[in-house]
Amino acid sequence: MLSLDKVFHAQSVLKNIIRETNVVRANGIAPGCELYLKPENLQITGSFKVRGSAYKIAMLSEEEKAKGVIACSAGNHAQGVALAATKNGIHSLICLPDSAPISKVEATKAFGAEVCLVEGCYDDAYQKALELQESKGYTFVHPFDDENVIAGQGTIALEILNELDDIDAIVVPIGGGGLISGIAYTAKQIRPSVKIYGVQAAGAPSMYNAVRNGEAESLDAVSTIADGIAVKKPGANTFALVQEYVDEIALVSDDEVASAILALIEKQKMIAEGAGAAAVAAVMFHKFDLQGKRAVAIVSGGNIDVTSLSRVIDRGLLKSGRSSSLLIELIDKPGQLKDISRIIADCGGNVTGVHYEKGDTESVNGCYLRIEMETRDFEHVNLITRSLRDEGFKII
Amino acid sequence: MLSLDKVFHAQSVLKNIIRETNVVRANGIAPGCELYLKPENLQITGSFKVRGSAYKIAMLSEEEKAKGVIACSAGNHAQGVALAATKNGIHSLICLPDSAPISKVEATKAFGAEVCLVEGCYDDAYQKALELQESKGYTFVHPFDDENVIAGQGTIALEILNELDDIDAIVVPIGGGGLISGIAYTAKQIRPSVKIYGVQAAGAPSMYNAVRNGEAESLDAVSTIADGIAVKKPGANTFALVQEYVDEIALVSDDEVASAILALIEKQKMIAEGAGAAAVAAVMFHKFDLQGKRAVAIVSGGNIDVTSLSRVIDRGLLKSGRSSSLLIELIDKPGQLKDISRIIADCGGNVTGVHYEKGDTESVNGCYLRIEMETRDFEHVNLITRSLRDEGFKII
Repeated sequence: MLSLDKVFHAQSVLKNIIRETNVVRANGIAPGCELYLKPENLQITGSFKVRGSAYKIAMLSEEEKAKGVIACSAGNHAQGVALAATKNGIHSLICLPDSAPISKVEATKAFGAEVCLVEGCYDDAYQKALELQESKGYTFVHPFDDENVIAGQGTIALEILNELDDIDAIVVPIGGGGLISGIAYTAKQIRPSVKIYGVQAAGAPSMYNAVRNGEAESLDAVSTIADGIAVKKPGANTFALVQEYVDEIALVSDDEVASAILALIEKQKMIAEGAGAAAVAAVMFHKFDLQGKRAVAIVSGGNIDVTSLSRVIDRGLLKSGRSSSLLIELIDKPGQLKDISRIIADCGGNVTGVHYEKGDTESVNGCYLRIEMETRDFEHVNLITRSLRDEGFKII
Repeated sequence: MLSLDKVFHAQSVLKNIIRETNVVRANGIAPGCELYLKPENLQITGSFKVRGSAYKIAMLSEEEKAKGVIACSAGNHAQGVALAATKNGIHSLICLPDSAPISKVEATKAFGAEVCLVEGCYDDAYQKALELQESKGYTFVHPFDDENVIAGQGTIALEILNELDDIDAIVVPIGGGGLISGIAYTAKQIRPSVKIYGVQAAGAPSMYNAVRNGEAESLDAVSTIADGIAVKKPGANTFALVQEYVDEIALVSDDEVASAILALIEKQKMIAEGAGAAAVAAVMFHKFDLQGKRAVAIVSGGNIDVTSLSRVIDRGLLKSGRSSSLLIELIDKPGQLKDISRIIADCGGNVTGVHYEKGDTESVNGCYLRIEMETRDFEHVNLITRSLRDEGFKII
């Protein structure tokens, strides 16, 4: 049974394994809200997951420990289990689909796990893990639907309540629900008035739907940049805990998540993965009533590969008007690029790319000019567009 | 006169203005060295600079405070002075060259400063600041060559020595020398055995040259991605302090700095600007003897604009084989793009860009096809190249 004692016990067990992450004040991310971040992206292994798996593993019997543990994950859970097992001196085997990014495979190995690459997708790897569990007697470490795992995640609430007085709300991303279950249960025991708000990706609203419909069903498909919370079905334990202890759940879009990742980079100098930025996105885009409130958003992890990061930055710049792209129809006349460059420079825009493109222009000699620019915001883009139109240029 | 008492005094004055940043253990960045980071990128304003300027401003007379302060900077110093003045309830005017990035201008305004954009370069802005200082009676806040500023930066050493026992070395980036002067002076008073290592950008080696030649001369030009430490001439005070208290200075290249920025993102989930990553780069690339030692690298700031960040990431990906670009000569025959796409997909590469380019091909009807891909590593790139060649494609 989950109990506050168990969470305190987890805290003492985890003392020499995890880092106690200190909350940081987030200025300028959510005007009107006194927002703090709980930076579990700075946790060892780059995510909170190690808390739950390390407590789970520490609580195994000697016999179970001797046989070792197995898990299936292409992400943070894999690294958490690997590290937790290594720190407890036991063997871990992690099944990953062979399509998993090489960086994740390497990281999992680096934390001391044996890695089993399984041909196919996540479900194939999961099946393989179950087979191996049965044939070899490993203990399966579930990523969320396990009370010891949930108790481990609950230690986050202990740290927050120890560090900050009088908080009104904690905002938590939800995948399978292990993190929010642990935090909500723990926080409500200690400080019943604190609101617990959950956040899911709009492309993977499994817990959101479950709570709304009163029953947990499996989504056919999930699609979101927040891959850490792209879970098709909530756990039985976590669903029950969320129903009892979570006040409200909201959804965030991929673009909102991307904006939050960018805001964390620029304002907090911090890397979050999509799931890690989901709670911040919910605060930024006013999904909950936090005006005048003191709130903590959990930044659950930072394991985003740099290729995705690069794409997110580009998209975030575009979506906030800080980069933009104009398509201008030119007629065949010298000096047009010069005029366009001058107008943009006069408006304070910074040209970063110029491409001529052929196309279905009015004049047979016409062409399209695509201009990429760094800009301040959408107002600035509008100013530039207006100035170009005023001088007779046709913006498509 | 600089004294340890002054540094302790600065610490008490700064208590309610700055954040005390906690060191973080950096795993996997420098094998064989027990490396910690002092994350001044997480400092308020995103850099350590606020320490020095806030102490300087706090120590002004009431008369000087009433007149306000002026500074010239396109970077972290501007934001430090702006915030420090605002927190002390006094007026600040920051002169910036009108070529300064939009984001820096906005950030400086956001911290409460009046901004004066001066046509031209940094030197023009500096001249303007001197004029205004004289005509209006403002106090000029120097970015480094001032004993109160140096004492403010010295508080970093107090925090480090308070948090970590038995450290062997502190590695510090050097621009004008204010940061390293404060840290070196303070650390050596308290723990004389600690080594202080300085790091400059190879493209701006002003202090490095000064120490080697025994005299400070002005560089004609500076060029580095670490713009925060691109300083042409050390200060008189800082040069003397560096000569007395710094054990060794090394240089790092821009590619080394870029690798360090990428490593901090991937391994520490942390954004550093170029100057901020310079000390980490020196440790990563073994510029000092730190094997088996316990060392702290100062991550001095995180104010890198996201456009530069995007470029650094792209370069880092390219340099590690995680993105690549192939130029393929095509002859005029249908279906070639289809074949190429198939081969790349079969090898597990992910095409992210396709461009046809005209050029000096063998056949008059030929053209070049540039393919951009996401790849796993250089071995993966070679596999794809080999497979394309095996099917008869000519890779340039």
